[in-house]
Order: sequence, then structure tokens, then C-alpha cells
Amino acid sequence: MSLFKQVRSKLLPAAAVSVLTAGLIAGAGFQHSEQAAAKKQEDKNEIRNVIFMIGDGMGAPYMNAYRSVINKGKPADGMKLTAFDPNLTGMMMTYPDDPDSNITDSAAAGTAMATGVKTYNAAIGMNKKGQRVKSVLEEAKQRGKSTGLVATSEIAHATPAAFGAHNKSRKNMNEIASSYIDDQINGKPKVDVLLGGGKTNFIRKDRNVTKDFKKAGFSYVTTKQELKKDKNKQVLGLFADGGLAKALDRTSETPSLEDMTTSAIDRLNTNKKGFFLMVEGSQIDWAGHDNDVVGAMSEMKDFEKAYKAAIAFAKKDKHTLVIATADHTTGGFTVGANGEKNWHVEPILAAKKTPAFMADQIKAGKSASSVLTQYTKLKWSKDEIKQVETAAKQDPDKGAYKAIIKLFNTKTNSGWTSGDHTGEEVPVYAYGPGKEAFTGLLNNTDQAKNIFKILKNGK
Amino acid sequence: MSLFKQVRSKLLPAAAVSVLTAGLIAGAGFQHSEQAAAKKQEDKNEIRNVIFMIGDGMGAPYMNAYRSVINKGKPADGMKLTAFDPNLTGMMMTYPDDPDSNITDSAAAGTAMATGVKTYNAAIGMNKKGQRVKSVLEEAKQRGKSTGLVATSEIAHATPAAFGAHNKSRKNMNEIASSYIDDQINGKPKVDVLLGGGKTNFIRKDRNVTKDFKKAGFSYVTTKQELKKDKNKQVLGLFADGGLAKALDRTSETPSLEDMTTSAIDRLNTNKKGFFLMVEGSQIDWAGHDNDVVGAMSEMKDFEKAYKAAIAFAKKDKHTLVIATADHTTGGFTVGANGEKNWHVEPILAAKKTPAFMADQIKAGKSASSVLTQYTKLKWSKDEIKQVETAAKQDPDKGAYKAIIKLFNTKTNSGWTSGDHTGEEVPVYAYGPGKEAFTGLLNNTDQAKNIFKILKNGK
Repeated sequence: MSLFKQVRSKLLPAAAVSVLTAGLIAGAGFQHSEQAAAKKQEDKNEIRNVIFMIGDGMGAPYMNAYRSVINKGKPADGMKLTAFDPNLTGMMMTYPDDPDSNITDSAAAGTAMATGVKTYNAAIGMNKKGQRVKSVLEEAKQRGKSTGLVATSEIAHATPAAFGAHNKSRKNMNEIASSYIDDQINGKPKVDVLLGGGKTNFIRKDRNVTKDFKKAGFSYVTTKQELKKDKNKQVLGLFADGGLAKALDRTSETPSLEDMTTSAIDRLNTNKKGFFLMVEGSQIDWAGHDNDVVGAMSEMKDFEKAYKAAIAFAKKDKHTLVIATADHTTGGFTVGANGEKNWHVEPILAAKKTPAFMADQIKAGKSASSVLTQYTKLKWSKDEIKQVETAAKQDPDKGAYKAIIKLFNTKTNSGWTSGDHTGEEVPVYAYGPGKEAFTGLLNNTDQAKNIFKILKNGK
Repeated sequence: MSLFKQVRSKLLPAAAVSVLTAGLIAGAGFQHSEQAAAKKQEDKNEIRNVIFMIGDGMGAPYMNAYRSVINKGKPADGMKLTAFDPNLTGMMMTYPDDPDSNITDSAAAGTAMATGVKTYNAAIGMNKKGQRVKSVLEEAKQRGKSTGLVATSEIAHATPAAFGAHNKSRKNMNEIASSYIDDQINGKPKVDVLLGGGKTNFIRKDRNVTKDFKKAGFSYVTTKQELKKDKNKQVLGLFADGGLAKALDRTSETPSLEDMTTSAIDRLNTNKKGFFLMVEGSQIDWAGHDNDVVGAMSEMKDFEKAYKAAIAFAKKDKHTLVIATADHTTGGFTVGANGEKNWHVEPILAAKKTPAFMADQIKAGKSASSVLTQYTKLKWSKDEIKQVETAAKQDPDKGAYKAIIKLFNTKTNSGWTSGDHTGEEVPVYAYGPGKEAFTGLLNNTDQAKNIFKILKNGK
């Protein structure tokens, strides 16, 4: 608030204001008025909150494909943009510092974005020497801000863990879950809001970590309804044993990424010093590993809705910087393949459930024919149904799943080169005050470096 | 130059300046000084020249791969950037407006970037209704600027043609070649400098178009040495029957893309009204179609050198805008594949010639073993050599070529999903005055729309 406005609101009736104004401008007050204007300008640029959103595996091809999906495959000059598109500011290099790999995993990438340090694949908040490195979430907490982690994977999974924990390996998810309550800052838990999956990492034979959270004053919730009802500033929400179901497959008890993001913002925003929140659309990557284009688009939609909610908050708040990016791209996904200049979205739009859901129905004893017919609006040839049946017989565990994925890849003309990550740059989207620092070609470590600066200077 | 500086340098000894300064600021001179400063600002922003550079097929994965190549595969925090990287300003959507395809070809993409109009695949400077649409090159010529087209493909090939010609189909390369001299603006040829390949499109049984160019006052050159010697402002240079040899394979008689670009700039820059120049690294795409990673990296290097030359000119000139982008990405190339978190550059660095060159040697009678040994610094197993031999026998025309490409893809762990283009966005790089308009997510038509504005307003 400017000096002038303070004077106006606190001391004077409105009628007296214009006289004072004239006096201020004419005399020595001119200088004060300029200072006040400068101060107001400063305030406008102040960044109180940072929301850092990671579409795990969300390389440029995923955004391109998703844009086609929301346009129902009819590109034209009036192409509708995704919520991310207008905020594209740059691209980001993702390579790790690993003696054995030049393509990153989510742990090294998460650590780079969270701490500003390149490290080996699997490292959680640790450098190559195995030393703990401070994350932007920890810096925010030290500065009195509130903090949150939201994901559709286990909340102790690589990406959220890189922001809230330190461990030599991402595999130690139980240790990471425990550390969220044990590894404190100034005698208090460092993460105020944890929402995601991974009950089995918290409720174990050796320890029930949810009890420790409750003792520390946290609420513990396990359904969308409980999450909505609860108003505690500190909350642990675990909505699945492992990762959440994919958006297309969720029951009414499972919150969406948007539900969790909104709930986190509502709680964190009660701190006048501001907050740092990391939100991950975790399973874009998981679908990518399986080369599952239906699942990937389901998770893109879930992530976009959460992004829209974050942007809507930032638009109102005016002191919130929202960054969205990916940690790497997954599966070597390409929009089009096999020498054909087309990518078809109709089969994706026709899928009511993911291939994983459909395969589970077949595993449970339903016929391939009835499942494919019930859960898609597509016509399936006898040969296609036969392919799923044969695969299910040959490999009862994964056969039907793989066969259904393959059918969707053929029908959409999707290309995949890998079951793992590939090395391409990923897009960066920035909105709000401070976004200029996220322009052009970034390194993944620049994300943390920029956010550390913002936390230090407030802009 | 500001009024003040003019006064200072032309009229007054330095000692007298401070007195005048005081007078100017105190009195009516203050206003003049402000106007002069504004004029200086205007001049600084004036854009006289536009160099539009297209890496055909150069999607984001190609830039990522090339960066690894120049870093010799040793990524670290000190990653050396490509010449393009510091100028990354955005990404560009490439889809055509074609009833049969939602992935573009080079003709529709070239037409979109040259004219601002989306059209069907194969269209050269024509809209969907088959009507001619004006290109930025034609607009520049109408405004008295000089114009140039440079490519490593035939100069009548889709991309250069989209800027300098109008034809219902890219296939009509002979018609396009003729039109470069026949289809004039104000009674004069519309392109002053044409450098590339495609002699057979110009020297035909029905007509020798090179003679018409000479009659119109153009020089006609066919070697690097002739190009260097010639100083005519207007030149037709055709350095191969079809496309130029790939950079790795060129003889000393064939100019590089840098040689052609520099020669074009030198000639075009004699026009005080400025110039428009389109430069295409044409064969990144051709290598991509063949899934040839060695050829693709050879052409990336050729294109980068040309880009460096353009940027060096722009840096000196200060009134030149340099845009670099791709028309689409090709082959569904991914950096890494097959479930492995590595992409290996060593085999690319070890190749002294492209697979095409090596295959031609085998076709000419040399043994696969001697050719692979002579033209690479790699050790080849008996099984690898056998693969090439067998393929050469089974398919004497293309077998050895395809087998060698496959070996390099295995050794580098490169992924490919197609022999054609895919739909992903491509990076955009802008340098110089006016670059701000090329920021964020662009449509390919925005390129022409921006350049038309610049040609109209001079900034």
C-alpha cells in the first residue's frame, strides 16, 4: 500500500484528501510521493508464493498430443490452446551428472530442480558425494513460509521426495515417508501439506507413520470427502496404497490432482509469509513407460485441470509465481509414426477407461469382447479381439494390457521408441511476477537457482 | 545519434559542453533533447534485413542430439551450448490445413511461414483454393529490398520454392525453376541470389533456364571457387544436379551452407534498402527420412556454421533480425531408445563419411569390411560386417545403406518411429531487433505475419 493510500485510509475523511494531495505535489512532498510510487511498484513485483508444477515425463510431444485431443483432432487456424500454451517461456535441459547414464531419471531431475545440483540417477536431495543438499522447499520453510507436496504417485516417490527428503536412493520409499515427519526444521515438520498416494509406505509392520503425523498436529485423511471436510492447516492425505488410480479410472472417493492442489493452496495460503507448493502429475510418466497413449492423455487432462486451478489462484493473488515443466520426456513418444502424416485422436476420445482398467476386467474373468465394447465407443474387429484374447492367455498378468495398448497405438498412429526416458529438452511455462527468469533455454538446475533467489529477495 | 551528441561532435570543443548542457536542460532545449533521444531509440530498432533460417526437419530432438555431439557426449554443468541455444525464444506449431493429413509436409509448412496462410500439403505459395498468396520475399522485393534463397536441396525444392514461387504442387520443380525468372515483380526477377542444387531443373531438353538468368544480368556459377570469384549482385549458383552432397561427403568444389550464406549476404547487403534472405539446411530432413543419425548430425553442423555466419553479420550490422526454426520434425527421432538411459555420440564422432557415401563405395565394388574400416574409426565385429554384406546382396540398391544406418542407430541407441514427419512443435530462435515478436508458442503462420509487419513498419 502506498504512503498516500495509507494516509487516506487511516487518518482522513475522503473530503479532506484532495487538499492534502495538492499540497504534497506542490511542495517537498513531491519526493515522498515518488518514493511511495516506487514502493508500490516494488510491492507489485513481490513474490510471496511459488507453485512449482511438474508433469512427470511430460515432454513436448505429450503437450502436442494433448492439444490435438482437446481440439478433437481438427486442427485449423482456430486451434484451441492448452492452459499451459500461453505461458510457454522456454525449454529445459534435463541431463543428469551420472557416470553410467546421460539420460536422467526422476530422482536426479527432481533433485536438480529442487536443489540446483546435478546428481546421479536415484539420488534424492543428495549430491554425487552423497551429501545432503538443501531444497527450495526447505529454504521456504526456514524463511517461515508454509510448504506442500502434492502428487498422484506415492507421496514418497522420487519427484516429491526430491523436494522434501534426502536419501541415497529413491527406492527407500519407507525411509523417505518416515523422514517427512522425523527430519524437521527448527523442531517442526518441514512439509505442512502432503497429499498423494502410498499408504503402504506410511502404515507398515515396523511403524505407523500416520500416527506420528497426528501427534504432531496433522490431520490424516484418506478420501476426497474427508479432504474436503478437513480444515486443518497441516494435513497428510493418502488416497491409495500405491499410486492413485488414473484420472479416467478414479472412483468418487479419490480426489483429482485439481482437488488436492486446491485443498493444498487453501491451507497454505493462510500463512501471511506465503508458501512453496510442489504439484506433480506423476503418472503421465507411468503411462509413457508403458507406451499407453490413453493413460497418458488421461493424466495430461488431470494435470491441466490442476494447473488451471493454480493459475486461477495466482491471477487473483497477484503475488504467486507458477512454474510448470517436466523432469524429462518418457517412452520416446512421437505424434505420428510409421510413415504416415496423421495422428488420430478419435480412439482416445472414445476410451471411457484406460487399458489398465480394461485389462483388469479381463483378468477378473470378463471376455475381451465385452470389455472392449463396454469401455470404448469403438468398433473392434474379430482379429483385434483375438489379439487381446491370445495375449491374455499367453501372459495372464500383462498380456491383455499390452495388447490393448498396442491396439490403441496402431489406431492412433502413435510412435514409441522406449520403455524408459529419452533425452530431449522439455517445455517450461511461467506465469506471474518473476516469470522473466524462466525464459529461453534453461538447465534443470536453473529452476532451483531462480527460486532460491526469489525466496531470498522476495522477487 | 542524439541532437546533443551531434552538437558536441560537430560544433564544440569538449570544454564548452557542460555549459551548454546546463542551458539545454534548464530551458526549452530540454524538449528537443527528448525528441532526439526518442529518434535515436527508433533508429536502434530499425530492422533493415531479415534472415530467415530453416533447419528442415530440425525438431527439438535434433538440437538435443547435436548439443551432445559438440560436447562429445560428456554432459556436465559446463555443457557447451549450440550457437542456436542462447537465442531460443519459443516453440512453433506446424500443423497444415489439409483434409487428408494433420501432420505437415515442407511445402505447406514453407507456405505457412512464407505467406502466413495454412494450406494443403504439397502447395507452393498457394492457399487451399489454389490461389496465389504473397510471400514475405515478394513483399520485400516490392519494397525495393534485395532478396535471396539459399538451400542445400534443389533450389526449386519445396522450402525455398514456398518463398519464391507459386505452384499447385512441389513436384513441379522444373516449372518452379522456370518461374524464378519468368514470374517477375515490376518487370524484374524477384530473387536476386539463388544458391543451391538442382541443375537438372534448370538445364533441360525443353529449356536452359540458366541462359535466361544470364540474359537478365545474373552470373551463373557451379563451383565454390566460381562463387567466391564472382562479385555480381545477382547470381544463380547451382552446385549439383540434385541436392548437394552432405557436408561430411562434399568435395572441395562444393560450397558449404556457410559459404553460400556469406556469399548471399555480401551481395544482398549492397542494397541500402536492405534485404530478405531465406537459408535452408535442407538435408537434416532427408537424413531424418532415412533415419540416418550420422547424416543428420553432419547437416546440423553445416546449418549451425551458416547460422553463426548470419549471427556474426547481424551482430555487426545491428539492423538485422535473424530467425531460425524448423518446418517440422522428421523420423520421430528420439535421443535414446530401447529402455536404456543413454545416447552414445562416439560412433557419430568416429564417422568420417555418411552411410550413403560408404554404401556407394560398396556398390562400386569395395568390400564392406574395407569401407567400414576406412571411413570410420570404429571396430566392427564380423557379425556387423556380415549384416552389411548380406543386405547388399539382398538389395543391391539400398541394402548396404540401410544396414549401415541400422548399425549406427544400434551403436548410438537412437530411436526412430517413422520414415516421414511427426507432429511435435519445433524450437524458434530469434536474434536482433524485433525478436520479441517471436516469443512463446507461435503458429507457423505467425512467422510471415510478423515479418510482413516488420517489412511494413521497418521494425
